[in-house]
Amino acid sequence: MRLLLMYEPSAQHRAALTAAAPGATLLVARSEAEAQQLIAEADAVLGNRYFLQALPYARRLRWMQSNSMGMDLILRAGEQLREVVLTNARGVYDDELAEHCLALALALARGLHLARDRQQQRRWERMPLATLAGRRALILGWGGVGRAIARRLRALGMTVAGVRRSHQGPPAPDADGFLIWGPASWRAALPHTDLLILALPLTPDTYRLVGAEELAALPAHAWLINIGRGATLDESALLHALASDRLAGAALDVLADEPPPPDHPIWAEARVLLTPHVGRSLEQPPYRWEALFVENVRRFAAGEPLLNVVDQQRGY
Amino acid sequence: MRLLLMYEPSAQHRAALTAAAPGATLLVARSEAEAQQLIAEADAVLGNRYFLQALPYARRLRWMQSNSMGMDLILRAGEQLREVVLTNARGVYDDELAEHCLALALALARGLHLARDRQQQRRWERMPLATLAGRRALILGWGGVGRAIARRLRALGMTVAGVRRSHQGPPAPDADGFLIWGPASWRAALPHTDLLILALPLTPDTYRLVGAEELAALPAHAWLINIGRGATLDESALLHALASDRLAGAALDVLADEPPPPDHPIWAEARVLLTPHVGRSLEQPPYRWEALFVENVRRFAAGEPLLNVVDQQRGY
Repeated sequence: MRLLLMYEPSAQHRAALTAAAPGATLLVARSEAEAQQLIAEADAVLGNRYFLQALPYARRLRWMQSNSMGMDLILRAGEQLREVVLTNARGVYDDELAEHCLALALALARGLHLARDRQQQRRWERMPLATLAGRRALILGWGGVGRAIARRLRALGMTVAGVRRSHQGPPAPDADGFLIWGPASWRAALPHTDLLILALPLTPDTYRLVGAEELAALPAHAWLINIGRGATLDESALLHALASDRLAGAALDVLADEPPPPDHPIWAEARVLLTPHVGRSLEQPPYRWEALFVENVRRFAAGEPLLNVVDQQRGY
Repeated sequence: MRLLLMYEPSAQHRAALTAAAPGATLLVARSEAEAQQLIAEADAVLGNRYFLQALPYARRLRWMQSNSMGMDLILRAGEQLREVVLTNARGVYDDELAEHCLALALALARGLHLARDRQQQRRWERMPLATLAGRRALILGWGGVGRAIARRLRALGMTVAGVRRSHQGPPAPDADGFLIWGPASWRAALPHTDLLILALPLTPDTYRLVGAEELAALPAHAWLINIGRGATLDESALLHALASDRLAGAALDVLADEPPPPDHPIWAEARVLLTPHVGRSLEQPPYRWEALFVENVRRFAAGEPLLNVVDQQRGY
């Protein structure tokens, strides 16, 4: 069995992989050309780097383990993935993403981005500010990240509801007491939402799920956060809502085009706080996904069901 | 009994005050000159505005209710206050101050102030970031604000300790399980502190309590927040520690001089996030202190002990 690593493993991680799959051969691709050559004999690929460029050269690939949570880019390979089981890094980054989302929510409420602009101009101007306590949040996407955000916002005194694709019928509380809305009815919650959070995978169903109509249904004092995938939000509609004062502010960690070109209109809107896709920030080794990779390699070698298998039809 | 209000009461608030002290006369000062005239016959003053300018003209003043929490400015009146019971607005702003402090802590960990600077330059640069979860905070000042901050940081997964003036002996957990240090020993906790928070009143004991020595004892990756009073921190020492990379960053809602002059060196340090004393932000009526004022007026009229009496020797 040949495992192709799209990253340079530490000695410790290499030893753990070898122990998990005794007898397996570990190959390491250090360039796109190497990846294209080595993938021909690989049974499995670990890691994203060079994967899409190498995939056309695969001949016996049965499994690909991503170190991302979102699979939209990889799933663009479409038919080439028909014989390949995909697993993702679901769960690995939930806590960091939730904390980043909380940071963005508090920054919006406390006007930190606008305070920073005034600081750069050496202006000291006090103003009225809001608190999150007592307000209502609605989270689109009720996976591990959405629920991790929900727990933190509730600890701050917010009333939190979620929208879950699989929920049927009228809204109902889940086991933790969060009110869950289904895809047919969630828009009814928008007029009572102070903070709308997008924590969605990008799929055909979620492409621009939040657009002009949804933004218009929010109160004018509402804030919006996107921590999932940029294209789940219609950014033009967001800018239009802000320009016409029908929304108070937004914080976006993700954009439909990353990095945004210098003439992208989002740069010019001060009421948008942008962070450069760092809800999952850059890592130094040891990587947080190493334990997941080792466990899935063990399962692959043993013929056991893998963790975090992606439903290629559903898109996550 | 004559109550002098240093603010324009709403009709509702005026009715509540009258109901709390039947027969009392409510006077309203709308200018410094009016305050100086009206205070001569006043038994009590409600509100800070014009108070220090009017105090020399008081003849029978027995009680002053502040709408602030910090009493350092008012206590500068010294001897003139000998016959006056002072009460403050302790407790009224705890939740907002704690939420602002949490916003600042998360902004430091997630680099939001630096991200905003890059946004203004249209730069999209990913970087490694920290999370608060799993790290250690030390809170100087264990009043209502300090404890409200502690609860929120613990909900985020931090290990939180506090420093309390009245604590004797070695550090010991309080009823909520927070480790409490006393004034003699707290500096021993600094080398193990990732986030140092100043939530202190300004008194002779706390003036520049955190200076070069305390900052040098923190690890180089540590952050500092001041949410209490500016002069409890030696700002020059802070700037020096940042300039020599012996501290990772700071967020200051308060400064020794507010507003800071345009040539104040704090403006030039990008690793300091400044907010303009908005931990308690500007309010629109109804004011959050109205219920406290009404209850203390009731107690004053009934001869009962007042809430939030300030120890003028201690300074808070």
